[in-house]
Amino acid sequence: MSLAEFKAFREKMNEKILKEGTLNTKRFFNLDSAVYRKGTLSEKTKELMGLVASLVLRCDDCITYHIVRCAQLGTSDEEFFEAFDVALIVGGSIIIPHLRRAVNLLEEIREMQKRGKDVHI
Amino acid sequence: MSLAEFKAFREKMNEKILKEGTLNTKRFFNLDSAVYRKGTLSEKTKELMGLVASLVLRCDDCITYHIVRCAQLGTSDEEFFEAFDVALIVGGSIIIPHLRRAVNLLEEIREMQKRGKDVHI
Amino acid sequence: MSLAEFKAFREKMNEKILKEGTLNTKRFFNLDSAVYRKGTLSEKTKELMGLVASLVLRCDDCITYHIVRCAQLGTSDEEFFEAFDVALIVGGSIIIPHLRRAVNLLEEIREMQKRGKDVHI
Amino acid sequence: MSLAEFKAFREKMNEKILKEGTLNTKRFFNLDSAVYRKGTLSEKTKELMGLVASLVLRCDDCITYHIVRCAQLGTSDEEFFEAFDVALIVGGSIIIPHLRRAVNLLEEIREMQKRGKDVHI
Amino acid sequence: MSLAEFKAFREKMNEKILKEGTLNTKRFFNLDSAVYRKGTLSEKTKELMGLVASLVLRCDDCITYHIVRCAQLGTSDEEFFEAFDVALIVGGSIIIPHLRRAVNLLEEIREMQKRGKDVHI
Amino acid sequence: MSLAEFKAFREKMNEKILKEGTLNTKRFFNLDSAVYRKGTLSEKTKELMGLVASLVLRCDDCITYHIVRCAQLGTSDEEFFEAFDVALIVGGSIIIPHLRRAVNLLEEIREMQKRGKDVHI
Repeated sequence: MSLAEFKAFREKMNEKILKEGTLNTKRFFNLDSAVYRKGTLSEKTKELMGLVASLVLRCDDCITYHIVRCAQLGTSDEEFFEAFDVALIVGGSIIIPHLRRAVNLLEEIREMQKRGKDVHI
Repeated sequence: MSLAEFKAFREKMNEKILKEGTLNTKRFFNLDSAVYRKGTLSEKTKELMGLVASLVLRCDDCITYHIVRCAQLGTSDEEFFEAFDVALIVGGSIIIPHLRRAVNLLEEIREMQKRGKDVHI
Repeated sequence: MSLAEFKAFREKMNEKILKEGTLNTKRFFNLDSAVYRKGTLSEKTKELMGLVASLVLRCDDCITYHIVRCAQLGTSDEEFFEAFDVALIVGGSIIIPHLRRAVNLLEEIREMQKRGKDVHI
Repeated sequence: MSLAEFKAFREKMNEKILKEGTLNTKRFFNLDSAVYRKGTLSEKTKELMGLVASLVLRCDDCITYHIVRCAQLGTSDEEFFEAFDVALIVGGSIIIPHLRRAVNLLEEIREMQKRGKDVHI
Repeated sequence: MSLAEFKAFREKMNEKILKEGTLNTKRFFNLDSAVYRKGTLSEKTKELMGLVASLVLRCDDCITYHIVRCAQLGTSDEEFFEAFDVALIVGGSIIIPHLRRAVNLLEEIREMQKRGKDVHI
Repeated sequence: MSLAEFKAFREKMNEKILKEGTLNTKRFFNLDSAVYRKGTLSEKTKELMGLVASLVLRCDDCITYHIVRCAQLGTSDEEFFEAFDVALIVGGSIIIPHLRRAVNLLEEIREMQKRGKDVHI
């Protein structure tokens, strides 16, 4: 699935969930945005924490989301790989298949950025 | 993967596993059916418990199975979303990608039901 | 740890977390109460779903909480064991050590109830 | 908790679960014994697989059980540490706290064996 | 995804990760190969332990890898199913969807072996 | 268990593991230290990532370790709670029991720091 397809499905379904879900569903989604907003910690640090959490819990869609957000916030390849290393050592080799897909996505993002394309989610 | 494709693969492989597996494999599969049968708790309550367990353990195929079974047993959209809310709060935002696919499937099921198609597994 | 000790530590720390935590922390805790309130599904069904989710995720403190709540709402031993069976088959034998502690707690609760003691959390 | 205390609680609670549980609970427990019996694979290989599974799923009680069983079946320290290495690499550094307790237990077992005490479960 | 596609993507991405990763990334990958080499335990026992660990942690790519390696090392269908049984009982019914894909792969491998094709990774 | 007891057991067992373990065990432990060293990302960011990873994987000993390390590196209460919020939303309410113990430990650490005691691990 390309990044564009991922984003399209994500947006379509989030919209449906927020429309059909209960008030609690909506509150959960709001809270899920709120915790990553700038506080004492920067947005970038929070997104990196979200990325590592997603890697050790092995959720490809969450990894995709946080990699795009981190890239948007100017995370360098060096910083990405240091975050990947923490996830690898904490979570073990079962992380590796997700890392392969993460690095593949990162490459797609860098290609888009080279061509001057806006990368966001 | 459509619901029809899911069911076809599931049935084909279950058959193979039961044919090639050991006596213990067969016993496990039998037990896996037995625990959801009506007891003091209704089948619907048991399937809802199975659905929430599958959501927090993030197993898409298991979620698909229990959503079909719950729909078969007359679970309403309101009941589904209250079960989703429990899974979301217990399991956290890593559940969301699975919830997107679950809500997409639920929509497919509701479409089938509107057209008078039998939904079962 | 006895049920009384569990409750004392839980209350003391929840108070601290709600006092020192951010607005988002408080919102999460509020939401965590809200999803178990009576809706289309009964409180008991929701607590049973919470119990099975806690069992398959193997969180002893969460299991303790939901067993007390389920007992408060009139769950019978037969119903408890049918819920345990679903958790066992979904989550596997790694659930068993938690089941041992759960059954031990259930016995403590039944003793309290026999002596006319109020069981709540 | 000493090995003796672990065994006493385990036996007492297993007995209660088998007495109070449903027919399905009993079947699950029977199956849990059956899969480790000698088949084409030896008991020792099966217990080593159970040990590694328990380590990566981070269940201390399950680890204790399988270490005792492996020791009973003549597993050497070298073999134990090679199994620990597989668990460490697959499951990551979150295994380490469990490994500390596992090595502590293994030492207790070796002491018992030196003093001619029977180690079993 | 066919086994050939899986291998092609795996090799391409491993190469990239080892080129772009840090020294620690490379060390982790080296260690991940080292623990499965023959020691006091045979390669086959180690790969079977890796397979069961991958099954209970529900990582399809890891399962694929270890099934190919086990097949390469002469694991029989009987041995595979005894390992599957241990994973099923430890990890529960959420393993079943992965088992379906595992048995499907095993069939593909046996077909290749019948046609005299070399199976390796 | 007090922080002092935790540290004593941790050091004693790490020493034993490094003495009795294989070369691969030692390499894993070395790598586990290496990934948290200052790189492009600061030590503090890496420890915060380690803390969030430990929280969502629900490993109390790992949480203890990273909280001490973060406190050593000057993490403020505000920063801790923002990290806790990310872990809570990603990992869900099953994190809460670990959060209670984490906040309890943080209080013990702040007490030590007030009394001029060195906090380290």
